[in-house]
Amino acid sequence: MSKRKKKHPRESAVNMTEFVLPNDTNTLNNLMGGRLMHWMDIVSAIAAQRHSNHLVVTASVDNISFKNSIQLGNVVTLKAKVTRAFNSSMEVRIDVEAEDVPSGKKFESNSAFFTFVALDDKENPVAVPVIEPETEEEIALYDGALRRRQLRLILAGRMKPNDAKELKSFFDLKP
Amino acid sequence: MSKRKKKHPRESAVNMTEFVLPNDTNTLNNLMGGRLMHWMDIVSAIAAQRHSNHLVVTASVDNISFKNSIQLGNVVTLKAKVTRAFNSSMEVRIDVEAEDVPSGKKFESNSAFFTFVALDDKENPVAVPVIEPETEEEIALYDGALRRRQLRLILAGRMKPNDAKELKSFFDLKP
Amino acid sequence: MSKRKKKHPRESAVNMTEFVLPNDTNTLNNLMGGRLMHWMDIVSAIAAQRHSNHLVVTASVDNISFKNSIQLGNVVTLKAKVTRAFNSSMEVRIDVEAEDVPSGKKFESNSAFFTFVALDDKENPVAVPVIEPETEEEIALYDGALRRRQLRLILAGRMKPNDAKELKSFFDLKP
Amino acid sequence: MSKRKKKHPRESAVNMTEFVLPNDTNTLNNLMGGRLMHWMDIVSAIAAQRHSNHLVVTASVDNISFKNSIQLGNVVTLKAKVTRAFNSSMEVRIDVEAEDVPSGKKFESNSAFFTFVALDDKENPVAVPVIEPETEEEIALYDGALRRRQLRLILAGRMKPNDAKELKSFFDLKP
Amino acid sequence: MSKRKKKHPRESAVNMTEFVLPNDTNTLNNLMGGRLMHWMDIVSAIAAQRHSNHLVVTASVDNISFKNSIQLGNVVTLKAKVTRAFNSSMEVRIDVEAEDVPSGKKFESNSAFFTFVALDDKENPVAVPVIEPETEEEIALYDGALRRRQLRLILAGRMKPNDAKELKSFFDLKP
Amino acid sequence: MSKRKKKHPRESAVNMTEFVLPNDTNTLNNLMGGRLMHWMDIVSAIAAQRHSNHLVVTASVDNISFKNSIQLGNVVTLKAKVTRAFNSSMEVRIDVEAEDVPSGKKFESNSAFFTFVALDDKENPVAVPVIEPETEEEIALYDGALRRRQLRLILAGRMKPNDAKELKSFFDLKP
Repeated sequence: MSKRKKKHPRESAVNMTEFVLPNDTNTLNNLMGGRLMHWMDIVSAIAAQRHSNHLVVTASVDNISFKNSIQLGNVVTLKAKVTRAFNSSMEVRIDVEAEDVPSGKKFESNSAFFTFVALDDKENPVAVPVIEPETEEEIALYDGALRRRQLRLILAGRMKPNDAKELKSFFDLKP
Repeated sequence: MSKRKKKHPRESAVNMTEFVLPNDTNTLNNLMGGRLMHWMDIVSAIAAQRHSNHLVVTASVDNISFKNSIQLGNVVTLKAKVTRAFNSSMEVRIDVEAEDVPSGKKFESNSAFFTFVALDDKENPVAVPVIEPETEEEIALYDGALRRRQLRLILAGRMKPNDAKELKSFFDLKP
Repeated sequence: MSKRKKKHPRESAVNMTEFVLPNDTNTLNNLMGGRLMHWMDIVSAIAAQRHSNHLVVTASVDNISFKNSIQLGNVVTLKAKVTRAFNSSMEVRIDVEAEDVPSGKKFESNSAFFTFVALDDKENPVAVPVIEPETEEEIALYDGALRRRQLRLILAGRMKPNDAKELKSFFDLKP
Repeated sequence: MSKRKKKHPRESAVNMTEFVLPNDTNTLNNLMGGRLMHWMDIVSAIAAQRHSNHLVVTASVDNISFKNSIQLGNVVTLKAKVTRAFNSSMEVRIDVEAEDVPSGKKFESNSAFFTFVALDDKENPVAVPVIEPETEEEIALYDGALRRRQLRLILAGRMKPNDAKELKSFFDLKP
Repeated sequence: MSKRKKKHPRESAVNMTEFVLPNDTNTLNNLMGGRLMHWMDIVSAIAAQRHSNHLVVTASVDNISFKNSIQLGNVVTLKAKVTRAFNSSMEVRIDVEAEDVPSGKKFESNSAFFTFVALDDKENPVAVPVIEPETEEEIALYDGALRRRQLRLILAGRMKPNDAKELKSFFDLKP
Repeated sequence: MSKRKKKHPRESAVNMTEFVLPNDTNTLNNLMGGRLMHWMDIVSAIAAQRHSNHLVVTASVDNISFKNSIQLGNVVTLKAKVTRAFNSSMEVRIDVEAEDVPSGKKFESNSAFFTFVALDDKENPVAVPVIEPETEEEIALYDGALRRRQLRLILAGRMKPNDAKELKSFFDLKP
């Protein structure tokens, strides 16, 4: 049995910058949530491709909460890196920041977790390298990935809540 | 104190149809998840506008799981309606179906819940009509909305897991 | 000789909803007629595909008259269904309605007839099912289709005006 | 009473060239009719603006018949000029030609008539210069404009067929 | 040895007209330089295709200086023609003019030289016809093409400044 | 007289990542030069905005040479930073790299210099901070900026070749 390759989160890191144009905004001149999710999908798919060296498809998107509205003319910076790999799937963390460049004012918009599956030439799932986290933050993200995965499986109806050990401890619910 | 207006889910129902073009797909000719989320955001924003008769902004998106890949040339049908209104926020359910029209083959793609906040002219949150569900399915969606809201608040760090009564019963976790 | 399949207009019905964005408008913030025709072509092509279960190409567009201007931020609803099928061609009726969602004000924009030809894998015309109208409105559209077809053929220089019996009676011109 | 200004068709002439990209085509790699109509609307609106020196809105589109399919990678040339002006409205003729540039093969695609209304700053219709045709072709287009206008009015339900003298003579229908 | 075909600049002439839409502008409502360059690339690529009867790729772009800003709603006219052909490469001159159509005010925006390489079916460079200039302006552009080519080669580090005879005389630098 | 503020090149650094989609490519599936220049303009405009804390307009683009063709599905990384500021204008250096992510193969595409002018609220040029280069590479770019500026001025017909001292020494042309 062959041992799987190891890669670090930083090897998949991607930075994307977008300029908010009129067609990206609603009639209040706020960036539409859907356009932002479109960008988040692209940046995280590139991170997952870099980690797996395969084409990837989006498998799921975790709960996203939009805090501050982003305005027409703002510059949006999206940073993505793989937090943990399972067999053929990978979780990617995306952090979104917006900037009113003339004033230099920056603010956090939101963060999110997207999951991707790597595919081979016949579009079948294919095993990907495992993740070896390096920084403290990467280790925390790596550890939490199991819990988030259980929540995803429960919400998709593919795991029973009582089997989700990591998730239970997060909810701090003693039996 | 004035009583809030009541509206039915069907009053906000929106049907959207999109044709998958080359720029919507990745190199495998599959619809990119981000483009689909962009469409889901537009259709559900229209539903929330119809319910509230106000402009709206996306507040959050619940966990989405993508099941079947949608192909170049497929026709995508998105159906949205408001499931429940809180004070100034509304939860919208979106069901996505894809169709290979020449063969007539239809398949479910995924469903999702988006939340919107209604804004007045000064971009402040404004109260919206309450929802009065009519069909059995609408009642089930209405009832589940509280549980989903608690999960959203917990995941956004704005509620403690132990305070989420409805959610606890869903996870079937006895104290 | 095989008998052709029959289908009802409702089997090809398509609803499309579009949100008017800045790039869809002219400098008066009115939806440009060309963008609207682009949407009308897509929605009616889907209806023709649904009826024929084949790929289709636009053969002609009948006279369109634009009544009320549609504004930036309006929601446009397009409804299409096949009115009558000839050999390999189909006439599709499209009704366009616009809505200022915050105020709830709806208004008719225009209606139109597009014709499509169904193609087989070698891009040759292929026979399509005949239409069996059900409602009174569908019967009226079915009956008028012959007259509209004669006008199309005359305007394309492929029929002599004196041979257009149905059209003559419409123009109420007695010899 | 002031006499209206005169302008020649060539003063409003516009040439537009478009390159057919993947997103402009259907799954057969043919240019979609709707995209072509979008381009036709833009080129003819510019011609109407040049004639009127005012902003314009599309009032109607005459019957269009699509003859030859245009392919991905083809170059499309659209030529527009005003044929006749009425009070505040103008008829524009558009000729569309396609070219497979590597082979140098050119072919006619279709021609059409679009009508526009000129608007002043308050979006009210405003009188435009009259047309003085110069070439034989321009005179023929100028003369035919009355007949086409009657057909438009009849089809829009705003003229009775028996009042359409010019149109009757075209249909060669003797009383 | 076969003699190369000759073609005139006017045989490759292309006119393109674009309408400046919201998404083409920055927050000052000025056309973005990058969008204009995109259009310049398309119009000049069509000219190079017309001259060579082959597919082409952009090889280089000469220094461009943007003089007057172009506004939202302006009409941009781009005129391109091949000035000189080398072996498999061609230099194309593009002249850009903008127009505020309602006022009829036209102004020059800028001009530029783009170079393209013609490719055969295997994407290898292929010889193109030589240019035979006709007008005085075409002869001047033809003559200057050598000097501009030397500057390109020097700036790309592929020619030593001292070998650039034509360029030296332009800079009027006596040894 | 107030002393101008100093900023480092790294303070204006921007990273942009783009995914090459079908509509970005020509019929050979190569990224079109014009689309790439559009992206280069956006990334460098953001760098110039960051340096100046003002809105900016593109003033000029230096000679660009495209070396390796970029393919459909490649990931393009653009890195921009300000090299030198003059009074109200700034020179920005952009480096473009492409990557075939599945194979992990990266290659340089090209580099370029764009110049921007900072504008105040009334769209008049406004003074910007001076640049203080830190690394060896930044110092070399800072020093070369004067020479490139002279070439720009000569090519725009606003400087006589003999007055361009720095440029002369680059061309190694002794008087």
